[in-house]
Amino acid sequence: MNRQQLIDLIRRKESFLCVGLDTDLDKIPSHLLESDDPIFEFNKAIIDATVEYTVAYKPNIAFYEAYGTKGWQSLEKTIAYLKELEVFTIADAKRGDIGNTSGRYAKAFLENLDFDSITVAPYMGKDSVGPFLKFEGKWVVLLALTSNKGSDDFQMIKTGTRQLVYEHVIKRSAEWGSPENMMYVVGATKAEMLSGIREIIPEHFLLVPGVGAQGGSLEEVAKYGLNKDCGLLVNSSRGIIYAGKGSNFAELASIEARKLQEAMSIVLQSAAII
Amino acid sequence: MNRQQLIDLIRRKESFLCVGLDTDLDKIPSHLLESDDPIFEFNKAIIDATVEYTVAYKPNIAFYEAYGTKGWQSLEKTIAYLKELEVFTIADAKRGDIGNTSGRYAKAFLENLDFDSITVAPYMGKDSVGPFLKFEGKWVVLLALTSNKGSDDFQMIKTGTRQLVYEHVIKRSAEWGSPENMMYVVGATKAEMLSGIREIIPEHFLLVPGVGAQGGSLEEVAKYGLNKDCGLLVNSSRGIIYAGKGSNFAELASIEARKLQEAMSIVLQSAAII
Repeated sequence: MNRQQLIDLIRRKESFLCVGLDTDLDKIPSHLLESDDPIFEFNKAIIDATVEYTVAYKPNIAFYEAYGTKGWQSLEKTIAYLKELEVFTIADAKRGDIGNTSGRYAKAFLENLDFDSITVAPYMGKDSVGPFLKFEGKWVVLLALTSNKGSDDFQMIKTGTRQLVYEHVIKRSAEWGSPENMMYVVGATKAEMLSGIREIIPEHFLLVPGVGAQGGSLEEVAKYGLNKDCGLLVNSSRGIIYAGKGSNFAELASIEARKLQEAMSIVLQSAAII
Repeated sequence: MNRQQLIDLIRRKESFLCVGLDTDLDKIPSHLLESDDPIFEFNKAIIDATVEYTVAYKPNIAFYEAYGTKGWQSLEKTIAYLKELEVFTIADAKRGDIGNTSGRYAKAFLENLDFDSITVAPYMGKDSVGPFLKFEGKWVVLLALTSNKGSDDFQMIKTGTRQLVYEHVIKRSAEWGSPENMMYVVGATKAEMLSGIREIIPEHFLLVPGVGAQGGSLEEVAKYGLNKDCGLLVNSSRGIIYAGKGSNFAELASIEARKLQEAMSIVLQSAAII
């Protein structure tokens, strides 16, 4: 899915919601555990219940790898199911390795599984990110400023030029691609920093986790992060997919997704994007 | 395997060689492609041919993920085979995510697959690394200064305190664990920086990739990186596993591994470690 198609989808659904599929066997309704593939059955029900309100889905790969080969099968079925829908797909894998090895990860996620995008860790620099940018029509979502407490440890270090490390990462890496094939992860818990980030990269899409369970506010994120094309994908994982634990879990997930979509619709109208 | 057991193994084998199992179907001898699981058959032959000279094996997970579910099966068989031998095992996965998610990766590699250690990316900070340190008897191998060109982009940035970012990463993260459960990745292509690193962490083991194919020198690495317990695991991947392409590939791999082991034996003797 290219940039214009993503923007069109956001306008049509009046939503910039990304649903995180962090599917954990310890947290899904117990009646699903009897099925052959509880992870996929859960994902399918969540997707069906939320797709009307959602422009992107983001399986976090850790939750699938935790179940080994069986987890990979669930992931393969989930992405195949998502590919039949008109949604943007993000492999939240946070990979990154030396060039030829990053190329193998790129093949795994962008070619074999055919995700639209993959999250990538920046620490190893340009030649670790480049191989992910070689796939026509695919995207890198680079970690910039993450939503966790540990982001203070290295991302917030002041460099010799007075920039913080995460600002340096954004500025330097923006030269490697374009707003057509790169996005950045910026945590909602640091919403006030979004305006500084928008000065560096006014046009790029930002993937914003941390709204809801981690404490970030949609209004704050929109206030500082919105650009003329929207330019935001706001992720919610636990707040939607674990809204209920009983047989009505999908219905409750749908309600939570709709609430966020309605709030996003107001944001988009206020900014005259729709 | 704990630190003392690793040191004993190094002394007994007179080697600190780690063999990287970066197994690529495009590069392994063509006669293996007819078997049910060419990746495992190749790994098994390489392991059998090199184990006499080798203290550690390091499958790079990208090469397995590139083959999806089938690749995971090959990885599961490879680690099961390694667990029957007295060797240190490293999942070269370069993972890292927010706390609860890092916990899933930790479970995948340190519990389910039962690797002794996993390589971890530092960008997301303490709470992304911590979950890997909770497994008794297991190790984090943290990326510090990598062997690729892109390491200049962010790792070498000068901070406000005049330290470079990678030095800051080492200093800060060394507080999270101990030389009993943390190692660091330091590329052989930057051997001269090893002496500065040894001032910060005199006791930790360093995993040093980049000797051979990437141009690093064993003698330089030993000169600057050796400590009283050896404190080094030097990795070679392509130079050993792809030493030959014909039916004698394992024999040629064995010869290359032995060459390195013999050079390492001399290094260990010169330093009076054996």
